Amino acid sequence: MERMEILYLSQKEVASFGIPMAEIVIAVEKRFIEMGNGRVEMPPKPGIHPGADENNFIHAMPAYIPSLASAGVKWVSGYPPNQAKGLPYITGLLILNDPETGIPKAVMDCTWITAMRTGTASAVSAKYLARPESSKIGILACGMQGHTNLEAMNAVFPLKKVIAYDVSTRQAKHLADFADKTLGLEVEIVHDPRLAVSGCDIIVTSGPILKTPHETIRAGWVDEGTFASLVDFDSYWSQNALNQADKWTTDHLEQYEHFKTKGGYFQNCPEVCAELGEFVTGKKPAREKQEEKTFAVNLGLAMEDMAVVPLVFQRAIEMNIGTRLPL
Amino acid sequence: MERMEILYLSQKEVASFGIPMAEIVIAVEKRFIEMGNGRVEMPPKPGIHPGADENNFIHAMPAYIPSLASAGVKWVSGYPPNQAKGLPYITGLLILNDPETGIPKAVMDCTWITAMRTGTASAVSAKYLARPESSKIGILACGMQGHTNLEAMNAVFPLKKVIAYDVSTRQAKHLADFADKTLGLEVEIVHDPRLAVSGCDIIVTSGPILKTPHETIRAGWVDEGTFASLVDFDSYWSQNALNQADKWTTDHLEQYEHFKTKGGYFQNCPEVCAELGEFVTGKKPAREKQEEKTFAVNLGLAMEDMAVVPLVFQRAIEMNIGTRLPL
Repeated sequence: MERMEILYLSQKEVASFGIPMAEIVIAVEKRFIEMGNGRVEMPPKPGIHPGADENNFIHAMPAYIPSLASAGVKWVSGYPPNQAKGLPYITGLLILNDPETGIPKAVMDCTWITAMRTGTASAVSAKYLARPESSKIGILACGMQGHTNLEAMNAVFPLKKVIAYDVSTRQAKHLADFADKTLGLEVEIVHDPRLAVSGCDIIVTSGPILKTPHETIRAGWVDEGTFASLVDFDSYWSQNALNQADKWTTDHLEQYEHFKTKGGYFQNCPEVCAELGEFVTGKKPAREKQEEKTFAVNLGLAMEDMAVVPLVFQRAIEMNIGTRLPL
Repeated sequence: MERMEILYLSQKEVASFGIPMAEIVIAVEKRFIEMGNGRVEMPPKPGIHPGADENNFIHAMPAYIPSLASAGVKWVSGYPPNQAKGLPYITGLLILNDPETGIPKAVMDCTWITAMRTGTASAVSAKYLARPESSKIGILACGMQGHTNLEAMNAVFPLKKVIAYDVSTRQAKHLADFADKTLGLEVEIVHDPRLAVSGCDIIVTSGPILKTPHETIRAGWVDEGTFASLVDFDSYWSQNALNQADKWTTDHLEQYEHFKTKGGYFQNCPEVCAELGEFVTGKKPAREKQEEKTFAVNLGLAMEDMAVVPLVFQRAIEMNIGTRLPL
């Protein structure tokens, strides 16, 4: 029997390749088209919920994309109490397998891929649901997801101005610095969350995911013609604000329903009118009018991770980065 | 933020601790009692099915056992065509997390744990469903599972004689050698599968799992008072042979129903009368009469893996074995 080996890549190594956001947006959009055409295998993600906080989760996210020969699983945890301990909210690993034999070929830290692909899913939704001339973006909660969502939106839209809101001013400053120095955008830090919502073309809410929404955003704040990506589910939104949506979309209806019926999320949300795979393939309409308020609640799909991981693995092999380990 | 590290253990390292089968049987039985009392979190295992063979699978198996502080996932593949390529049927990895923070703390090859815990689940079922004086065991398919099932049964019963059947004589000889030299048992290799069924107190079928049973075992072969563990689901059995079961049990009814309705397995099997967790806790009867023919179809539970992995992890830490990697 031949010697079997896996390649291990740390968070630092995965990030070191500096894969451009624009490349990731295209990779993810392509796989949503395949998903819309039924060419991806992705069961709903099951999870466990250890620890004292009811919002803690560790999810198993398996997917197989035949066209990329990409098969594997992400095992990712989200622990809101970690932040107070100086630990990351999101941690986890991703395993990549050879689809021909099922044998694992790589294990890597999943946080970089998770952050990047979540941003790109928002940007793919926005490409179809936001006005193409969108230039002003509000980011509510300026952590890792705030950064990558902003970066991905900037790869798709002619952004000019960022309005940054966070309960932590340090976090807001961190994002402002990134928007200014790395992306070259004008930034304003605000202490009233309404200012990061009203007057914006695109809104991203990207705090921790909570079972009970804190309802910071109220009815009447969202302008006509705005697109909102709710990376943290409905955690930021009051029921009345959500009911002002003209189109309410998700990346995966089956999983959305699973979260709703089994998980207790989305209890006060509008009905889903279309899946992301349906409007990227033109099977259902995306934005139809200038004044529509469009919303995307993308749950984060294993398929997105498996769309990005080949970009990472290929670079690691080419550049001979990582630690080889016997299986 | 503190530096985060994971410990990696290869298949060879995991096996090197030589954890005794009797210790594993007790660890697994204890967790079945907890499961029977509702103290384990274990969602059904989802999977993907790459490759040309419809029997290929890669399953995600998450579980959390609060009493052991054991939380994690096994990502395990079974590819029947691998054997013809000189590759293992079962491969995969297991990730162990800190339940307090969700952060991964170890990754290890899962094949040793899978083999051992599957054997022990059979033995725990047998402890309650086989006659205590059982001494003659038939093993049909003498691969890895044949070995560990035999070893586990030998840890629980006063075994004397092993009847070994395999379509590959080399495999049968391999098991015979193990039974003789390692376990000190009398062994007979047979070329007629009926001889490994009729006259045996305990039967284990442990070939590859197939959607369409090959129906080698026919009605009338199983004696009164026999217990059978169907490690390979119903792959070995004809419908008429299965219908002679007096008690048909499984380790997890929800998962059994999932495999039946979604996976297309168990189409011609009797109704399940009890779950393993129900008879280890005395909530339902196990064997009641000498002459009963009792069957266990244990699907393999994530909970079993998470019951065993702390035994491995603890030894690795104590003996300073494994490779430390930055997360």
